[in-house]
Amino acid sequence: MPRIAYFGPQGTFTEQAAGSLAGQGDELVPVDTIASALASVRAGETDAACVPVENSVEGAVPATMDALADGEPVTAVAEAVLPVRFTVLTGQDTEQIRTVASHPHALAQVRGWLAEHLPQAQLVASTSTAAAAVGVQRGEFDAAVTAPVAVTHYPLRVLATDVADVPDAVTRFLLLRRPATPPPPTGADRTSIIAFMPDRTAALAEVLNELAVRGISLTRLDARPTKGRLGEYRFHLDMAGHIAEQRIGDALAALHRRCTNVRFLGSFPRADGVPSTVSATAGDTDFVTAADWVAAIRNGDQA
Amino acid sequence: MPRIAYFGPQGTFTEQAAGSLAGQGDELVPVDTIASALASVRAGETDAACVPVENSVEGAVPATMDALADGEPVTAVAEAVLPVRFTVLTGQDTEQIRTVASHPHALAQVRGWLAEHLPQAQLVASTSTAAAAVGVQRGEFDAAVTAPVAVTHYPLRVLATDVADVPDAVTRFLLLRRPATPPPPTGADRTSIIAFMPDRTAALAEVLNELAVRGISLTRLDARPTKGRLGEYRFHLDMAGHIAEQRIGDALAALHRRCTNVRFLGSFPRADGVPSTVSATAGDTDFVTAADWVAAIRNGDQA
Repeated sequence: MPRIAYFGPQGTFTEQAAGSLAGQGDELVPVDTIASALASVRAGETDAACVPVENSVEGAVPATMDALADGEPVTAVAEAVLPVRFTVLTGQDTEQIRTVASHPHALAQVRGWLAEHLPQAQLVASTSTAAAAVGVQRGEFDAAVTAPVAVTHYPLRVLATDVADVPDAVTRFLLLRRPATPPPPTGADRTSIIAFMPDRTAALAEVLNELAVRGISLTRLDARPTKGRLGEYRFHLDMAGHIAEQRIGDALAALHRRCTNVRFLGSFPRADGVPSTVSATAGDTDFVTAADWVAAIRNGDQA
Repeated sequence: MPRIAYFGPQGTFTEQAAGSLAGQGDELVPVDTIASALASVRAGETDAACVPVENSVEGAVPATMDALADGEPVTAVAEAVLPVRFTVLTGQDTEQIRTVASHPHALAQVRGWLAEHLPQAQLVASTSTAAAAVGVQRGEFDAAVTAPVAVTHYPLRVLATDVADVPDAVTRFLLLRRPATPPPPTGADRTSIIAFMPDRTAALAEVLNELAVRGISLTRLDARPTKGRLGEYRFHLDMAGHIAEQRIGDALAALHRRCTNVRFLGSFPRADGVPSTVSATAGDTDFVTAADWVAAIRNGDQA
């Protein structure tokens, strides 16, 4: 039975995303940290890992960026996008709620709601949204801000659902495996890489030009500082398209020449289903015809 | 007497940064949020504002990026870089510490130290590192993780200093004023802008090319998602150089043609004192000589 490690515990948004990406009968295995989810896949203890990668309000998830950049390569085979809408669970009458616990990022995203509805409550940082629910069950806190799925694990009273200060916030999750042939292209795919850049003027411009001249759209560019030193970066790039397509393969080969190192993080269907636009001169046939023409000349067979 | 608003309360890292950037006799005025610090400058209630802009581990500070992008323009005139090293203050004997409070970001950066030295303590989220110290004074918590400057405001016992899981982490702060002529160039300056980008392939590559062809080094590139929607961005760019220099002025003029909007956030001396490198063909004299040559031709005076 395939086993999927996810950044747990049970009852988090990541469990919810892992459930939506799992196949029938897959076993979901909660682990303590994002790094240990990837470590379990690398070690072959699990078949896949589900981790959050990006939030529309807060940006990239630093722990995931770091875990993807370091250690043996793993590649994404699928993504899921979940709305960030919280449920508030309690074991108390509303008037008696004195403490509200959750993960610090969750507390930050419902600060306005809490100020309006539970102004007297002290906010307590827990290690996850689900750990907050466990604390409520144990009587350590009066209420917890959790993922909707938490109520299926912890029999608490639902004080509110769909709680979010920013109504349209979403989080994107990746399903990661040990490297293998990517899933087949669908026409609406995303390719994700990390480019490690020499620290010199114009290096990033040159890399983006390799994408631009082939009509490839960036869907994300995230600069991660090297830990502990301002001004040194690696770049996480997502682009519209699949490595099986000629223009993407050609661009990645060019980046491999230009960059200190390029780590391929996967080509997989986009959760939003938006098809790639391919410019009139960058279709697969254009590349094949052009390569044939060069080969013909080299063979003394110029048309 | 000049008044400097800072993201307070008293006893935070931002107060420490504001103190290092203030002139003799300047009055430091704590305000509740980053947005209100900038609002007080925009309204003329204060002469300047000091806010955090970037951390070497966590990256950009989203509240500052948003507050700089929205509302009337303000521009940076100076920066300060502080090491992120915390002090732990308490009113208890060490064995009796059951709760430790701090800002969630601070707790995240000392998690390893707390697990080793105070493993039994529950972590409580406060609105700032200084609010945690106030809570300890009031008996609400047993210990607080604070900025070093906090001990000058709150007479508590120092349990530990120089606490940090990542030993070389630093935070950069800006001193912002209403727009005026920038401080004069020093040869080791930084220029900061926000480029609002049309959502089309190659737009960012074209912008970075305008810097690259003039030999301008990026010192930071931060993509901020538009709140609530993945895939739409504005770009915060920091570059080595001063708008008074020809190559920077020429590049910014080019960006003004290319971008939907460009917001100038200031040219000011770098805290690290690293001088700008200027390529052999991009010095001020090169630009002036070249402009004179074009003007001469237009005047029928070709040499």
